[in-house]
Amino acid sequence: MTDTTPAAARPLAAVILAAGKGTRMKSDLHKVLHPVAGRPMLLHLIAAVGEMGAERVVVVTGAGREQVEAVVAPHGVAVAVQAEQLGTGHAVRQAEAALVGFEGDVLVLYGDVPLVTAGTMRRMVERLHAEDAPAVVVLGFRPSDPGAYGRVIADAEGRIARMVEYKDASEPERAETLCNSGLMAVRGADLFALLARVGNDNAVGEYYLPDIVMLAAADGRGSAVIETGADEVAGVNSRGELATVEAGWQARRRAEAMAAGATLLAPETVWFAHDTVLGRDVTVGQNVVFGPGVSVADGATIHAFSHLEGAEVGAGAEVGPYARLRPGAVLERKAKVGNFVEIKKARLGEGAKANHLTYLGDAEIGAGANIGAGTITCNYDGFLKYRTSIGTGAFVGSNSALVAPVTIGDGAIVGAGSIVTGDVPAYALALARARQENRAGWAAKFRDMMRARKAAKQGG
Amino acid sequence: MTDTTPAAARPLAAVILAAGKGTRMKSDLHKVLHPVAGRPMLLHLIAAVGEMGAERVVVVTGAGREQVEAVVAPHGVAVAVQAEQLGTGHAVRQAEAALVGFEGDVLVLYGDVPLVTAGTMRRMVERLHAEDAPAVVVLGFRPSDPGAYGRVIADAEGRIARMVEYKDASEPERAETLCNSGLMAVRGADLFALLARVGNDNAVGEYYLPDIVMLAAADGRGSAVIETGADEVAGVNSRGELATVEAGWQARRRAEAMAAGATLLAPETVWFAHDTVLGRDVTVGQNVVFGPGVSVADGATIHAFSHLEGAEVGAGAEVGPYARLRPGAVLERKAKVGNFVEIKKARLGEGAKANHLTYLGDAEIGAGANIGAGTITCNYDGFLKYRTSIGTGAFVGSNSALVAPVTIGDGAIVGAGSIVTGDVPAYALALARARQENRAGWAAKFRDMMRARKAAKQGG
Amino acid sequence: MTDTTPAAARPLAAVILAAGKGTRMKSDLHKVLHPVAGRPMLLHLIAAVGEMGAERVVVVTGAGREQVEAVVAPHGVAVAVQAEQLGTGHAVRQAEAALVGFEGDVLVLYGDVPLVTAGTMRRMVERLHAEDAPAVVVLGFRPSDPGAYGRVIADAEGRIARMVEYKDASEPERAETLCNSGLMAVRGADLFALLARVGNDNAVGEYYLPDIVMLAAADGRGSAVIETGADEVAGVNSRGELATVEAGWQARRRAEAMAAGATLLAPETVWFAHDTVLGRDVTVGQNVVFGPGVSVADGATIHAFSHLEGAEVGAGAEVGPYARLRPGAVLERKAKVGNFVEIKKARLGEGAKANHLTYLGDAEIGAGANIGAGTITCNYDGFLKYRTSIGTGAFVGSNSALVAPVTIGDGAIVGAGSIVTGDVPAYALALARARQENRAGWAAKFRDMMRARKAAKQGG
Repeated sequence: MTDTTPAAARPLAAVILAAGKGTRMKSDLHKVLHPVAGRPMLLHLIAAVGEMGAERVVVVTGAGREQVEAVVAPHGVAVAVQAEQLGTGHAVRQAEAALVGFEGDVLVLYGDVPLVTAGTMRRMVERLHAEDAPAVVVLGFRPSDPGAYGRVIADAEGRIARMVEYKDASEPERAETLCNSGLMAVRGADLFALLARVGNDNAVGEYYLPDIVMLAAADGRGSAVIETGADEVAGVNSRGELATVEAGWQARRRAEAMAAGATLLAPETVWFAHDTVLGRDVTVGQNVVFGPGVSVADGATIHAFSHLEGAEVGAGAEVGPYARLRPGAVLERKAKVGNFVEIKKARLGEGAKANHLTYLGDAEIGAGANIGAGTITCNYDGFLKYRTSIGTGAFVGSNSALVAPVTIGDGAIVGAGSIVTGDVPAYALALARARQENRAGWAAKFRDMMRARKAAKQGG
Repeated sequence: MTDTTPAAARPLAAVILAAGKGTRMKSDLHKVLHPVAGRPMLLHLIAAVGEMGAERVVVVTGAGREQVEAVVAPHGVAVAVQAEQLGTGHAVRQAEAALVGFEGDVLVLYGDVPLVTAGTMRRMVERLHAEDAPAVVVLGFRPSDPGAYGRVIADAEGRIARMVEYKDASEPERAETLCNSGLMAVRGADLFALLARVGNDNAVGEYYLPDIVMLAAADGRGSAVIETGADEVAGVNSRGELATVEAGWQARRRAEAMAAGATLLAPETVWFAHDTVLGRDVTVGQNVVFGPGVSVADGATIHAFSHLEGAEVGAGAEVGPYARLRPGAVLERKAKVGNFVEIKKARLGEGAKANHLTYLGDAEIGAGANIGAGTITCNYDGFLKYRTSIGTGAFVGSNSALVAPVTIGDGAIVGAGSIVTGDVPAYALALARARQENRAGWAAKFRDMMRARKAAKQGG
Repeated sequence: MTDTTPAAARPLAAVILAAGKGTRMKSDLHKVLHPVAGRPMLLHLIAAVGEMGAERVVVVTGAGREQVEAVVAPHGVAVAVQAEQLGTGHAVRQAEAALVGFEGDVLVLYGDVPLVTAGTMRRMVERLHAEDAPAVVVLGFRPSDPGAYGRVIADAEGRIARMVEYKDASEPERAETLCNSGLMAVRGADLFALLARVGNDNAVGEYYLPDIVMLAAADGRGSAVIETGADEVAGVNSRGELATVEAGWQARRRAEAMAAGATLLAPETVWFAHDTVLGRDVTVGQNVVFGPGVSVADGATIHAFSHLEGAEVGAGAEVGPYARLRPGAVLERKAKVGNFVEIKKARLGEGAKANHLTYLGDAEIGAGANIGAGTITCNYDGFLKYRTSIGTGAFVGSNSALVAPVTIGDGAIVGAGSIVTGDVPAYALALARARQENRAGWAAKFRDMMRARKAAKQGG
């Protein structure tokens, strides 16, 4: 997924427009913060420009600025505010202060067009520095239905003759299929100079970013278009479109996973996160959800109905069906986690097993240990969390509760049904259960009584 | 989903034909009782005509009458019987007795064409009372492959020139794409009078309902067609078609949910019931099944692999992954139900949590209470069900069994692994577990013994 | 799925080519051993030729021979080795030694074209013995995009005029849409004689199997083509294609299941194995996985999120949601297995129930028995497995652990939370739990202490 080619040596900045109201999302969450592949859309773009080595990134927000700031804060990104919605040209100008003194190229991106790759961005910047030195590089695409998109009229080499809004386009122009995605690469030195000349003499009184192409042309400078696939520049204006963008991302990621040597038994039912790592000869069953932060090593099997997040699965390990690995779950080589088992901040050593109906939290399980069905680590007292340590080769009998903090020694055995409140020495047996008492005939009498009571009720 | 416009003031009745044998279903269940979106097909129609304010509804059945009667009994619907299968015209006549004295409009519907909306029915009735006062209003549609459907030859205003069975149609008629769905609106005063004149002089000796259109024409009265989408009039004759109708319904419902402000991470894996209610900014993960009777309030999250039925989920609550909410489950604001947890007839107060491997049945859980992993309410003794009450802010330690009837007071703590058989006072601690005993070296000896036994077996 | 028509009386052999390296699979597992519908591809073909009554089957392998041998060993199949990859003609010749003395027909199949049915094979063999007695019968197909497949030029009766590799084809030949699948039927007496004459005078120096058609023609003998659907001869060269073949198989199987009288609520989310058997009026919910060896009797319901393997589900039984039936699970009539329940090598008698959070392994449950929530059979001591026997009508209270070997008698009751280590006589009550102790005010003091400690920490 990652393009590791070093970015061009020229300084690079990115302006990401995120000031739209996103009304059609009907959400209290800012549109650009809705996640795709488990990561807010805006962070997809910030990661891509990070790969490109961008020196400065400016996000232009309007309403919901606080939400955006909170999310981008750890990423060293400037936030500019567009107080009024006066068009894309006006929006980009809000980034000018944050780019003072910057001498390099500027990419103009859109927070709701999240899947543009670093590779495409690189192609845009490289085109900007091609021999014919265009003033502006526009990213074009050919949608299956060009509809009302603005058209780019260009020659075979991508030299732009004209860009035209659909509503202003002639019939022959409308017949063109190359459309304007809105994304651009421009030298910083040019960008704000051109923008300063953009007017708002149009029906809605807005400043349009694409006007800089024609302004440059008026100066005798050409612009160029490069193309990319329509999927990559799909925008998100509604939850339906969000689902479509997610589905497209997932489809590509599944194909990549298979091409790299993983078997997906039903690819359409496996959901990856942006950072999922799968080894070779990994098998993934039906209906598996990977949240962020998961790596699965070679030869591991993730059975159907598993849900993993922040987890590390070792080579040859087996997970599921119906296993939930939560953040901090680590399965070493050939460890097994079975059905209806939840693992949180716990490490299972090589070959350790927890196969049924178990909760292991804040725990360290030694190699080869066997955790019986229904085992629960009692790791929380309502205030603090405590750790459970289980030794190499230990055997915890079924339906046991391990009241942390507690240590079960190497090779120790815990009898089934025990409530373990104290440490168990290595190679000892721990029992903590009541003696059984049988009361002969009691069940028969009880049933007679209950039946009589029922009959009396119905009789009454 | 619900059309709340008041129905026209004219009296309305509906005749729903449900006498087909449904042989291709290969089922002991009557065809019209197979469910779509968690509700028998027939009840979809009865609900729609109910929305329209229909005064009388007559279901015409043949074989399997008892099954149909049992299902429609609570809905105030008359059941008529068509003893012999003599065609649709004959079938509608069986409803005549049940409509004696009725003076109004009659809709003719089909039990195996379940998704016709009240809105469409209203358009049919309104057309019947338009200025040109057609004798019959036919519901037409344009399938992607018109195939062998009967064709409706009409002008641009929908005035019918001719209706023709495919087998009797000329080539130009077959080239028409407007097809007859079979659904009709007719004045009651006309319907049975026209039907009485329908003959069975055809190859199979059946009385065809559509013949009334040409009989009215012979009287010098026109008929009209209105159109609807092919999806809405899709019929069910096999389980494959049932699955197709279900899939179409689900696709529309998912789109509606997203448009209304819910995020579906993978819409194609969320299944709604006919009456599911989702608030704004609800997030629904992958693979979630909504059975009938579920409402989810604003900002709640339903994580992957959850299954809800008859449940109320409060604002900001969290459900799953792998949570099962059964009828009577009520989660108040910000309550949490986690993985491998089943809730049945139980209310969780605001902020209460039951996060792991738990069964709560016939219970009341106070606000802020914490139910530990592996907790089980023992609510059944083989005869009766008993209630468990857990107070505000109580803490139930992991792997506890609460033997109902039992009350855990406010702020009480139950020690992990306890079998609680008696009430626990507020702010008390309850312990009901055996003392732990460690037997040093026992595990080592046991393993030696078992290994020796195995070796002896293999040696022998 | 099974074609039961008796195979033709003539002796039949099959040569299955499986010597390709499968590089694009990026797998340590031999390509032909990757499973489709839960069974290695190669075994699909071996089963189909078995249905045909093939006397001898020879698999020709190259690298990975040991893996192939291990899988086919139980099937009475010979393995021949093609040490060098010198083309399909050369590969088939490696089977000659294994077919010495065989006088009959030979089918040439491909281990990575796994879904060819016995019915199609039979048509090939029958065509070989038709009146015009072709020397070779080729299996042709018409892909939606014929691309670079070799073309078969034949007349309307399937008499082959020419077969031509795409690269050698003229424009009119390329316009032909009938393509060569590579599969053939040839008399054994002809096959190796013709192959001995195939040369390798071509760009890559390989011996091509299809050349035998033109060699036979040079002898004045015709060959014939019969057609089948493109799906049936889909080949697997990558994990993506493996997923496509799996998806195609599943789609056909789902349609068959519905046509035979099962309701699949969401067919696209039900996965069958090659040998799944479903009765009439079975309902299968969303997201159900059938592993190999499952049969489900009439009227049973498999609810959403269930996973079955090696299990027998009786008439009217109910499974799930979230039930896992593992090999050896047997549910008799109207038995019920509910959510988060795992059954392994255990039989539930008629009407027995295990509805919640339970593990039953190596057990026998009597008719009408009720197994409470959270019950665990403790069947393993780290060395051996032991059996649990539960009598007719017994009632096992919730959260019990049954330490095997153990017998609960007919009609006995086990109190909730008991750790049962000894047998329980019929109609007795067993209790094995500690007495409850309440410590008044303890919880309030504990909370004060913990809060004070927290405050101190934060203060410090």
